[in-house]
Amino acid sequence: MESLQQKILTEGKVLSDSVIKVDAFLNHQVDPVFMQSVGEAFATRFAGAGITKILTLESSGITPAVMAGLSLNVPVIFARKRKSLTLHDNLYSADVYSYTKNESSQISISQDYIHHDDVVLVIDDILANGQAALGMIELIEQAGAALEGIGIVIEKGFQEGGNILRKRGIRVDSLATIASLENSQVTFQEEGPIV
Amino acid sequence: MESLQQKILTEGKVLSDSVIKVDAFLNHQVDPVFMQSVGEAFATRFAGAGITKILTLESSGITPAVMAGLSLNVPVIFARKRKSLTLHDNLYSADVYSYTKNESSQISISQDYIHHDDVVLVIDDILANGQAALGMIELIEQAGAALEGIGIVIEKGFQEGGNILRKRGIRVDSLATIASLENSQVTFQEEGPIV
Repeated sequence: MESLQQKILTEGKVLSDSVIKVDAFLNHQVDPVFMQSVGEAFATRFAGAGITKILTLESSGITPAVMAGLSLNVPVIFARKRKSLTLHDNLYSADVYSYTKNESSQISISQDYIHHDDVVLVIDDILANGQAALGMIELIEQAGAALEGIGIVIEKGFQEGGNILRKRGIRVDSLATIASLENSQVTFQEEGPIV
Repeated sequence: MESLQQKILTEGKVLSDSVIKVDAFLNHQVDPVFMQSVGEAFATRFAGAGITKILTLESSGITPAVMAGLSLNVPVIFARKRKSLTLHDNLYSADVYSYTKNESSQISISQDYIHHDDVVLVIDDILANGQAALGMIELIEQAGAALEGIGIVIEKGFQEGGNILRKRGIRVDSLATIASLENSQVTFQEEGPIV
C-alpha cells in the first residue's frame, strides 16, 4: 500500500535496528481519513471470504479493525488485556508474551460475541513476534470459529511472527512489510503475490 | 440520539442500580456502521467550532473518537494508560482514579501531538464520575490548548461527572443520558436544549 509506505517513511521514527516508532499515525495519534483507506485495503483483500466478525486487540488494533469492519459491514470485537469488572464471566482467555514490555498478559473476549459458525478476520496494527496474533488465534479456536486470515498494517519482516504464522498455513496479509531498519533506513519488502 | 437509546434498551444489560453493561455495542464489540452514525452525531453538534484535534482515552473511547474524527476530518489522539517503551519521553501526564476498578492510574499523551494553538474536542464512551474527562482536561491544560467541549456517548445522569464538568463551564454533549437504572429499568433523561 503505497500511501502507507509514504506515511512510514515521512512520519515513522527509526529508534534502533529493530524498533520504529509509528505513534504519529498508528499507535497514539491517528488520521481517521487515512485509516479509512487502510480499512478499505483490508476489505478489498478479504472481500468475498465470507467474513462475519473481525477480532483485534486493544488498543492500537482498534482503529484499523473498526475501519475494516466499516467497509466489510461486520461487527468488530476487541480483546481486552485485563479483566474489567463488567467483563468477568464466560470468557475465552489466552496468555500473550510481549517482548517490548517484557511481560506476559492475559487477553480475553466474552463468549457472547464469537461463535462456532463465525468466520473471523484478525486485524492488528503491527506484526513482530506474532505473540498477539497467536493469542487471538487461540481465542478463535476456543470459540470453535473459523480463522479466515490475518490482516496487518505493518509487518516487521525481519522478525519471527510472519514466518511462524504462515508456516501454520495461515493467510497473513500485511499492507506494508518492513524488510530492514538498519542504519536508520526503512527498507520495504517488495509486494509480491500472496502465498 | 434515538438509535442509540434503542441500542441501550435492546442490547444493554442492567447489572445493578448504577451499572449497565454495554459490551455488546460499545465497550467490547462494536458495530462500525452504527458507530459511524455516532461519530456523525458528534460532528454535527461540534460543526463550526473550529476543532483541530480530538482527544480520547484508550480503549473504549477510540471507536467513537475516530468516527467523529472521520466526520470532522481532524486527527485523533488516544491517551495511553501506561507508559509504553516507545512512548517514554516528553509526555503530558495526569492521574485518573477509576471507581469501577478501584485504583488510580496515570494517563499520558506525547507533547508532539497537542499544541497551544489546538482547539480540542474530548470524546469518551461513558461519563460517570468524570474522572477520565478531568484527566484529559488536565492534559489539554498542560499543552496550553483550548478545550472546546466534551462529547459523550452515554452519560450516567445520576452520577457526578456531568455536574462537575458543567459547573466548571465546560460544554458537555451526551448523545444519550441515562436518568436512572432503578428496578433494572433504563430511564432516559429527556433531551433538552444544551445549556
